[in-house]
Amino acid sequence: MILHRLLMAAALTTLLASPCRAADIAIAIHGGAGTIERSDMTPQREQAFREKLEQAVRAGHRILANGGDSVEAVSAAIRVMENSPLFNAGKGAVFNAAGQNELDASVMDGASLQAGAVAAVHRIRNPIDLAIKVMTHSKHVMMIGEGAEQFAQEQGMSFVDPTYFRTEHRWEQLLERQAQETADISRTHDFFSTVGAVALDGRGNLAAGTSTGGMTNKRFGRVGDSPIIGAGTYASNDSCAVSATGHGEFFIRHVVAFNICNRVKSGASVTEAGDTVINGILRDVGGEGGVIIMGPDGDMAMPFNTKGMYRASINAEGELFVGIYGNEP
Amino acid sequence: MILHRLLMAAALTTLLASPCRAADIAIAIHGGAGTIERSDMTPQREQAFREKLEQAVRAGHRILANGGDSVEAVSAAIRVMENSPLFNAGKGAVFNAAGQNELDASVMDGASLQAGAVAAVHRIRNPIDLAIKVMTHSKHVMMIGEGAEQFAQEQGMSFVDPTYFRTEHRWEQLLERQAQETADISRTHDFFSTVGAVALDGRGNLAAGTSTGGMTNKRFGRVGDSPIIGAGTYASNDSCAVSATGHGEFFIRHVVAFNICNRVKSGASVTEAGDTVINGILRDVGGEGGVIIMGPDGDMAMPFNTKGMYRASINAEGELFVGIYGNEP
Repeated sequence: MILHRLLMAAALTTLLASPCRAADIAIAIHGGAGTIERSDMTPQREQAFREKLEQAVRAGHRILANGGDSVEAVSAAIRVMENSPLFNAGKGAVFNAAGQNELDASVMDGASLQAGAVAAVHRIRNPIDLAIKVMTHSKHVMMIGEGAEQFAQEQGMSFVDPTYFRTEHRWEQLLERQAQETADISRTHDFFSTVGAVALDGRGNLAAGTSTGGMTNKRFGRVGDSPIIGAGTYASNDSCAVSATGHGEFFIRHVVAFNICNRVKSGASVTEAGDTVINGILRDVGGEGGVIIMGPDGDMAMPFNTKGMYRASINAEGELFVGIYGNEP
Repeated sequence: MILHRLLMAAALTTLLASPCRAADIAIAIHGGAGTIERSDMTPQREQAFREKLEQAVRAGHRILANGGDSVEAVSAAIRVMENSPLFNAGKGAVFNAAGQNELDASVMDGASLQAGAVAAVHRIRNPIDLAIKVMTHSKHVMMIGEGAEQFAQEQGMSFVDPTYFRTEHRWEQLLERQAQETADISRTHDFFSTVGAVALDGRGNLAAGTSTGGMTNKRFGRVGDSPIIGAGTYASNDSCAVSATGHGEFFIRHVVAFNICNRVKSGASVTEAGDTVINGILRDVGGEGGVIIMGPDGDMAMPFNTKGMYRASINAEGELFVGIYGNEP
């Protein structure tokens, strides 16, 4: 009886000391930033985007809710977007100037600072999975081109025919772009539809991942910020997790993801750090795009300096948000 | 007469106000870091290294002294080392696991934050020149593999046969490494012989550049830190210029070059910033290597956590330093 009372008391103490919910979990995703205007959208197309964003963010959140880790959650969310022809990653990636789909991806584990990245692969259905294999099954961080595909083969990953990635929409975009374009590639920066995710799991570990087909009509062999650890992706438990989407060259020069994490480490909130870099440093030099940021406490920010950014999140309270335009909260 | 006196007075004032020498110029270079022991060196080989380092640093300094800019100075110094079979860059690069010489390089202009990088090229005699072409003649920052070589061709760069890079010394290193090595590539980290340079020109502009053949027996397609802006190379007039050499995976995860510049920007001296990152953060995680750092005032630091680092500098006073081992000043 005394033991019983002691146990009851202990249980009550634990209950009072712990927060009213399990450890915080949270996730945010993006599906690209750019000139997204309501007037350019059909209600059907907008609905399709919102549904796919919700599906992706829920896929990642489900893993976190079941006790999975942040790397798994990030990759699950990204995989949904890679598999959808709506986004410029995996199926539905843009075409380079040589008429190929050329894919880049990266991932970083904020607990260990382990990272993996691949660039210029053409036959891997889910490049984010290959980035994870590089992180977990090689001693390297970055592998590119045929060498990366050779590694994928050794790891028993399944290959798709390069035509798998093709959509007519993207092919027409390429032809249109090539017709418009003089030598000035800066004119191509009206849209950047990389996908990415950041997550906080129940053990307090952060992760970030990014996947892209790059820029329409990019030169064969061009690599943007998405597979560059520090530029397009960064995660460290002692600061934050970031995935970027934007005009990659600017994001590389300003080491955007690490730059933001560094500011958070120095005491800035994720909102302040994101604003300083996206709406300050990058805006000043004409570097268009946005980021999603997750802090170690589940605080999130999704700043962008373009008209819109496809984005979604489920915060520590379990609240879903899906947004496209600039004026959504 | 009055005019003459006024002019004399003005000239005297200018003379007194200005420092006793022209605007500061300075340059530092490295030729790799690792287990360099006096006992492993013949006097002849040591002499060959010292002479080549001196030749390289003087080549860069000459350009600065003649009013040339820091990017030109950096590339001139690097070109000397790329052309020498002593260093793992250009001629004399190490072989990857597939028996190829696979070259990476990058450059950054601290005045404009423009940058250029190439990875996995096989037929460009001086990869640093191609990195500069990417910076100055493309809208991209990074180009890789065949796409980078296609761009080089369009730019009228001359190509060499891939056998140009081969030296018997490096071929034997590969065979030796393959014989020693189990699956554990971490055993290959006893030496990292990337080359690099940082310079301050007479207009106060900083630049950094790095060039490498990567790691002996690296996997086909592996990319280290050398072509990653932020990791192996960074330059910004408002902080510093850095070129790194070391176990690239660690340098990528810790975004070493930008990390150091960020600390300098926050008020650390180049010596403090370099020590914190190289002898603190990297040493703690087993990340071996070193960096050369140039501050906007010509202050230099060349920290490394390995037994030695091939290095040389000419400071703002015009003093030459050439070092190999750890106990040289």
